[in-house]
Amino acid sequence: MSAQQTIITLDLEGVLVPEIWIAFAKKTGIEKLQLTTRDIPDYDELMQGRLDILNANDLTLSAIQEVIGTLSPLEGAKDFLDALRSLTQVIILSDTFEDFAKPLMRQMDWPTIFCHRLEIENDRITNYRLRQPNQKQKSVIAFKSLNYKVIAAGDSFNDTAMLSEADVGLLFHAPENITAQFPQYQAFNDYPDLLERIKQELT
Amino acid sequence: MSAQQTIITLDLEGVLVPEIWIAFAKKTGIEKLQLTTRDIPDYDELMQGRLDILNANDLTLSAIQEVIGTLSPLEGAKDFLDALRSLTQVIILSDTFEDFAKPLMRQMDWPTIFCHRLEIENDRITNYRLRQPNQKQKSVIAFKSLNYKVIAAGDSFNDTAMLSEADVGLLFHAPENITAQFPQYQAFNDYPDLLERIKQELT
Repeated sequence: MSAQQTIITLDLEGVLVPEIWIAFAKKTGIEKLQLTTRDIPDYDELMQGRLDILNANDLTLSAIQEVIGTLSPLEGAKDFLDALRSLTQVIILSDTFEDFAKPLMRQMDWPTIFCHRLEIENDRITNYRLRQPNQKQKSVIAFKSLNYKVIAAGDSFNDTAMLSEADVGLLFHAPENITAQFPQYQAFNDYPDLLERIKQELT
Repeated sequence: MSAQQTIITLDLEGVLVPEIWIAFAKKTGIEKLQLTTRDIPDYDELMQGRLDILNANDLTLSAIQEVIGTLSPLEGAKDFLDALRSLTQVIILSDTFEDFAKPLMRQMDWPTIFCHRLEIENDRITNYRLRQPNQKQKSVIAFKSLNYKVIAAGDSFNDTAMLSEADVGLLFHAPENITAQFPQYQAFNDYPDLLERIKQELT
């Protein structure tokens, strides 16, 4: 009679908040920070380059957090998240870093987020450390081991292993190349539509 | 250089909010609902008895939730939880039921909670369903599999497997028989002390 309990796992950047590096690059005018894995496929090379640029521009973690603090969640994201949190459990699975996410998590009343960590010395970012490879997919596996039905939504390549592992995988705000390559995931562009679709799975 | 990322797992009743059945019994004046596992060691017998009493008193889920909504988190609990959520990730692990927890979660800005579920038909509680046995301990195992350092705090027998599984286990508001039987767990009675102790583990 009673259905399985549910956890919704959501990607962060592109789904609830802007792409942090892109927005940061625009705010600071440092164009090179707009490069993504589409430009530099090797993630470590990309990240080391980003950290070099931050240090070359004398940007401390505090300064970076101040800029990120001026960013806002996407329009409608907070209402969507509030509605979802009143209905079931929500955990954000993101490949960002906890120090970058914090100013945005504060604006959304501290939802739970699993992500990675920066290494900091004297307010300088000295390195980054991924908590574990494929953390999004592994988190879904962990929640399923706790007898939760997992409904996942994301927008990009680094979400597809999570969507595939989940009981229900959904795309949100995904670019056309993603929706074309992954037609097995229903795609949404508006929060109310996504919320309605998720609600169908909560009964 | 950088330490492991952390998740704090907290028991709910006794640690952040009152014991829900006891408080509910007092509010409604139904004395028999004050019975606990100390009186009826068999949990299923206890729960079936509670459900019988609720139905005999014509208490719908809505009516029960209305009463629970008049309960408040323990004094200082919200400030403690807010402080903790701004520092690291917090997940409440409770053996209560999501429909009972909801009016209290709302008052604490929807922290993430892993608990159990009631079976409801036409606003009547027809049964209860544990999501899985030993869910607190299993959740800690799951978070450790995601490369988190887990710091756990609880007050009672049903928390000790969680405390034992965690990297750091702490007692909070625990009665004397528990602190005496489990001297390996440092015991706290005030939120500021507990917060300070947890902070030591976050560096």
